[in-house]
Amino acid sequence: MTNYIKPQTLKGFRDFLPEDALKRQYIVEKVKETFKLFGFEPLETPTLEYASLLLGKYGTEADKLVYTFKDKGEREIGLRFDQTVPTARILAQYQKQLPRFFRRYQIQNVFRAEKPQKGRYREFTQCDIDIFGSSNPLSDAEIIACTYFSFKNIGFKNVYIALNDREALIQTLKPFSSEKVSVFSIIQSMDKLGKLTQEQVIQELIEKGLDKVTADSSLRKLLSIGPSQKISEITQLAVKLGVNSTDLPFSSTLARGLDYYTGAIFEVIVEDYGSGSLGGGGRYDALIEKLGGVNIPAVGIAFGFDRIVEAAEQLGYISLTKTGTQVLVTVFSSSQLAQSIEITIVLRRSKIPTEVYIEPTDKLDKQLKYADKKGIPYAVIIGPEEVAKNVVKLKDLAKRKEIIVKEEKLPEVILSVYPEIYRR
Amino acid sequence: MTNYIKPQTLKGFRDFLPEDALKRQYIVEKVKETFKLFGFEPLETPTLEYASLLLGKYGTEADKLVYTFKDKGEREIGLRFDQTVPTARILAQYQKQLPRFFRRYQIQNVFRAEKPQKGRYREFTQCDIDIFGSSNPLSDAEIIACTYFSFKNIGFKNVYIALNDREALIQTLKPFSSEKVSVFSIIQSMDKLGKLTQEQVIQELIEKGLDKVTADSSLRKLLSIGPSQKISEITQLAVKLGVNSTDLPFSSTLARGLDYYTGAIFEVIVEDYGSGSLGGGGRYDALIEKLGGVNIPAVGIAFGFDRIVEAAEQLGYISLTKTGTQVLVTVFSSSQLAQSIEITIVLRRSKIPTEVYIEPTDKLDKQLKYADKKGIPYAVIIGPEEVAKNVVKLKDLAKRKEIIVKEEKLPEVILSVYPEIYRR
Repeated sequence: MTNYIKPQTLKGFRDFLPEDALKRQYIVEKVKETFKLFGFEPLETPTLEYASLLLGKYGTEADKLVYTFKDKGEREIGLRFDQTVPTARILAQYQKQLPRFFRRYQIQNVFRAEKPQKGRYREFTQCDIDIFGSSNPLSDAEIIACTYFSFKNIGFKNVYIALNDREALIQTLKPFSSEKVSVFSIIQSMDKLGKLTQEQVIQELIEKGLDKVTADSSLRKLLSIGPSQKISEITQLAVKLGVNSTDLPFSSTLARGLDYYTGAIFEVIVEDYGSGSLGGGGRYDALIEKLGGVNIPAVGIAFGFDRIVEAAEQLGYISLTKTGTQVLVTVFSSSQLAQSIEITIVLRRSKIPTEVYIEPTDKLDKQLKYADKKGIPYAVIIGPEEVAKNVVKLKDLAKRKEIIVKEEKLPEVILSVYPEIYRR
Repeated sequence: MTNYIKPQTLKGFRDFLPEDALKRQYIVEKVKETFKLFGFEPLETPTLEYASLLLGKYGTEADKLVYTFKDKGEREIGLRFDQTVPTARILAQYQKQLPRFFRRYQIQNVFRAEKPQKGRYREFTQCDIDIFGSSNPLSDAEIIACTYFSFKNIGFKNVYIALNDREALIQTLKPFSSEKVSVFSIIQSMDKLGKLTQEQVIQELIEKGLDKVTADSSLRKLLSIGPSQKISEITQLAVKLGVNSTDLPFSSTLARGLDYYTGAIFEVIVEDYGSGSLGGGGRYDALIEKLGGVNIPAVGIAFGFDRIVEAAEQLGYISLTKTGTQVLVTVFSSSQLAQSIEITIVLRRSKIPTEVYIEPTDKLDKQLKYADKKGIPYAVIIGPEEVAKNVVKLKDLAKRKEIIVKEEKLPEVILSVYPEIYRR
């Protein structure tokens, strides 16, 4: 132990001090509550896998972003890159143990050797729900409804889940494709509508090699089509599952980047949050077979965890307390310590997160400043005067107001006058 | 995507399918509940750190067990090895932001390149609570009380926290040490009491190089001493914080392996669980300065997470349901799907985790078998007969009993007749 620690983290990696860790935990708890209600169950896979499991699964470009290394046994190791490939392994490895319809959620960190930049990290949390084993539209609808209510459970008011049919999209645009401009290239341009104007998209298609007439009519055709029968059915089922029908807009231009979708695709939009989608997914009936050799249809969605935390915070859905601790019980003097401890355990027994000040010789003022700096909303003061009268002082540190409360009434008062205590 | 996935995990790494993941989550939730109540707050640090942060911190032998590699930018990287060294970095890096008394818990996975063997893994969960910034015995007592009530909250009945004073232990045994047999070597042997008989320990000391008289009297001396003043004070404070005094045995032979403890040391023992301690810790006032150069006293404990899960399961404190889902709503036929969905959302609105069967054309029998295999305790059946009468059948799959319930009473009945629904 000769060398002191250098106080630095690797670029692209983050520490979460309590204030931020609490916010993230709050979002995790809220979505897990909903996942559980919808019958989804947790799955965890190791952080490290054989590199061969991960390489060649995400495309050549992505392979460069997989963290790989040789371990001390000369094995080629890779760090978790996403949650889909490990789940494909799970499906192949535990076929007999798993239920026919496997509804799982997975909330774990993944690693990408990307250039760090604003909002892009080398370690970040992925949060996925998927249903494996059914191609019935009810499973698409369950994913959509569970996503919708997860966002509602966090507090989001205007949540939309835009829907499209990837297959129909391809069929619609195929007639406009050519040897030079593939249907996927056209789809890529169409996906930019919203960010680009119609004119700009047409311009891009022309630059790619379509003639003006074809570019024009491909866009007109796409905008004119309505939801496929499949999408209508999924939408109806999602509405039956409680989703507001106006919150499920059909979007004929929605494409989603990944090639592996085979049916419905969807994207979560929160109106009041400007910076793009908060999640996306769809049906991918061929992928698990491609990866693992077992033919299992699948539908699922990935939540944009970091963005959800950011959006929820911006929109005021996460209480802004810096700490989960609700009360600091101060200590008047060493000889009064027993009283303070007594109050502390009474509050804890009432399920109120409570800290007792641990340096009894510090001045009261210092103790209150400590609570204030830490963001603890309430302080309890109990000096000889209060002890004599069997009361305590309850101080609201934000409002700088204090009230006198009978000792035995304290938990009740805190819980009733300050119901926001339950917020987190 | 040419190569199929090999369905294998690296040795020493584990998948947690829902049944196991749920058990682990249950324990995490229970201890977090208590941590929060005691005013502890979450901290998260990255999985990857500069290797230089980790190497040279745990001793030469341990250095070999740190997972290290070179990343694509030729940086020497290490995987999280424990939670103490990263926290020492946090304390040095964010000195001004952190509260004077930093009460943090940390529940993250760590990595050890050890030979995998029964009960030893290369990735496992660590769960620590510590208070930084105070050397007051009240902080020792808070750690002890929080640990005690965490175990009680899981359901453990006979929880003991054995205490000793590391400093007193050294002072007591120093007179018996020699150039050949260091005081630490004597301590090591004494620590085996319980596993070895007194005679065996004396024999070991003689083999190490003590003469018989010295070996004899060192043991007699050690067994004769009572708690130091410090330990008595901590015990009294812990009792005031609600710990049963008989659950805090003093153990003059308790040593704990790590050299860095400077004061009280403690160990969690659950009587009904045979396989050793479920957690241990103590005061380490010099370590943070040694590591990070900032003089911060500290006291804390590490929970043996895997063993706690094992013990809680063995002793029946974790409900043995295989799933968190409580009800499967079956679908009588495609034309009756709407009714089943309606029941599903009614149950979910009552906070009952519910799955709706997603292949409406499957026979009822197949649906019930699915629920049974998955371990879902209750199934709801709603056919044309039931619809006509506005009732549903509620089937208890374990007891193979069914009752008829009015549709609007269903959530109430499930919540009241089957209160164990709340168990998880």
